[in-house]
Amino acid sequence: MKLLYPTSLALDVKSLEGYSVDLQPYDVKEPIPEEHTDASVLVTWTNSASNLSDAAKRLKNLGWIQSLAAGPNDVLGAGFDASKIKITTGSGLHDRTVAEHALGLLLNAARRFYEMRDWQLQSKWPQHLGGPQPDRPKGKFTTLRDANVLIWGYGNIAKALAPSLTLLGATVRGVARSQGVRNGVEVYGEDKLPELLPQTDALVMILPGSESTKHALNAERLKLLPNHAWVVNVGRGTSIDEEALFSALESSQIGGAALDVFDQEPLPGSSKLWKAPNCIVSPHAAGGRPQGAEALIAENLRKFIAGQDLRNII
Amino acid sequence: MKLLYPTSLALDVKSLEGYSVDLQPYDVKEPIPEEHTDASVLVTWTNSASNLSDAAKRLKNLGWIQSLAAGPNDVLGAGFDASKIKITTGSGLHDRTVAEHALGLLLNAARRFYEMRDWQLQSKWPQHLGGPQPDRPKGKFTTLRDANVLIWGYGNIAKALAPSLTLLGATVRGVARSQGVRNGVEVYGEDKLPELLPQTDALVMILPGSESTKHALNAERLKLLPNHAWVVNVGRGTSIDEEALFSALESSQIGGAALDVFDQEPLPGSSKLWKAPNCIVSPHAAGGRPQGAEALIAENLRKFIAGQDLRNII
Repeated sequence: MKLLYPTSLALDVKSLEGYSVDLQPYDVKEPIPEEHTDASVLVTWTNSASNLSDAAKRLKNLGWIQSLAAGPNDVLGAGFDASKIKITTGSGLHDRTVAEHALGLLLNAARRFYEMRDWQLQSKWPQHLGGPQPDRPKGKFTTLRDANVLIWGYGNIAKALAPSLTLLGATVRGVARSQGVRNGVEVYGEDKLPELLPQTDALVMILPGSESTKHALNAERLKLLPNHAWVVNVGRGTSIDEEALFSALESSQIGGAALDVFDQEPLPGSSKLWKAPNCIVSPHAAGGRPQGAEALIAENLRKFIAGQDLRNII
Repeated sequence: MKLLYPTSLALDVKSLEGYSVDLQPYDVKEPIPEEHTDASVLVTWTNSASNLSDAAKRLKNLGWIQSLAAGPNDVLGAGFDASKIKITTGSGLHDRTVAEHALGLLLNAARRFYEMRDWQLQSKWPQHLGGPQPDRPKGKFTTLRDANVLIWGYGNIAKALAPSLTLLGATVRGVARSQGVRNGVEVYGEDKLPELLPQTDALVMILPGSESTKHALNAERLKLLPNHAWVVNVGRGTSIDEEALFSALESSQIGGAALDVFDQEPLPGSSKLWKAPNCIVSPHAAGGRPQGAEALIAENLRKFIAGQDLRNII
């Protein structure tokens, strides 16, 4: 059995030895070399579209594709025979790094680092942002202490983020398809949004990209947020109606938005979001660096050889 | 017995009732009214210099001043009779808020939000900061996970900060006058700096302002930091030799600096730090909002009435 692993990230291949599997590196931007078209397993990370569509045609022996991306839309759209090939995602490999970025965006918003930067570029001291300040004033988002943070899309990333928020004194609640208590956090169904949104100081969106999440945060729901509330998005850009968000920012209907993902990426130069008031644009930088890929590959390799159900299967 | 409390912050005065003490509000920017010059206790917060020097002359009955500032230099320099008047600080009231700001500055540095902002202002997508990235590359400070964070000035603020850093995966060590293990963090004496600085990814300075801490971080010690190391200062500006720091930034001898405090505040328009590469200027915004002041005042009020040693006494 042959497994092809990508050279587009540093993998500790030694840790995958001992399975009687032929481990071979490959270039994700080039066609797979002829001698490797007999591979049974393909691990993907930042493959070019042409590499994948070519592999879909030529790798006739393929039984399993392990993507290291959380949402492997590239693999799903490449033309692989889904009836014969198992596809597993890299869900879980990005939890800590996306959670850290989300925490950073929340603090950027609360502490207004983006506004300080604008003043710094003019060599001006923003006195209104420093010195004595009211402590946790009502109707402002100035700190995570005692802030109500609502995480919409309560999966593994949210579970990685929540302890940091709780430690800083925030009250964390979640919204997901299935309700319940997860690691001590109360998670509600989407039907509770009309009650939850008006109590929210910061809304963190971690929804996956799909038809069902398209424009989940629309004009109607934005209106339910308090005027000081911030929206942070580290999920997928399509989950927010950007026109409605721009209007909400422009009219000070919400406090601000810190966005790592957009409907169209890179965000076009013509987008109104670049200059929208209290809008922080981050270039899809939250994740993009899988952590612990070897352990996931090893676990699924064992299960694949044993004919068991794979982890993170689509 | 009369206690004067400042109207410059919101205090829950009700919680101070029941001590048979006459609680009276006063304006910290005006002279104390004649009928209140018999006060025994003065609580201060952002008092004007003239209010304090006037009070030092006219409040002949004063036995105790409770400042709510962490470092009450204003009170100490106002001419109060130190032989008769006890002075206590607001140490501890700023721990969580300064710690949160320091965490925000560390994430701003690691995630390069300041650089993203510069691109945003030009409506440009900084592709090099987003998309697939190497995970925790050696010789770069890109995340708190597995980063070595050294906190110099290991007091209450550091103790409030360390758990957040540890939770994100950082290895935290401290430097202070007295060594030992504090809340599970190894704290070394300053004599160990030559060994510790070269292993540091981020150096957080939380030193108080005094002659002994002046230019604690000087050219010689900056040279000991790795080229990728960041310096964060939420203590006092005088603890860093700003000329030496500017040179270190300009020559890429260190990775960057996120500064909330400066030798001179507001930072003069002529300072070279405004435009220094990878320098984040925050306008002394970390603290400035005492939290839990009522509990400290109440505790010290009980002790003052009982003739016991006061908390946070200078």
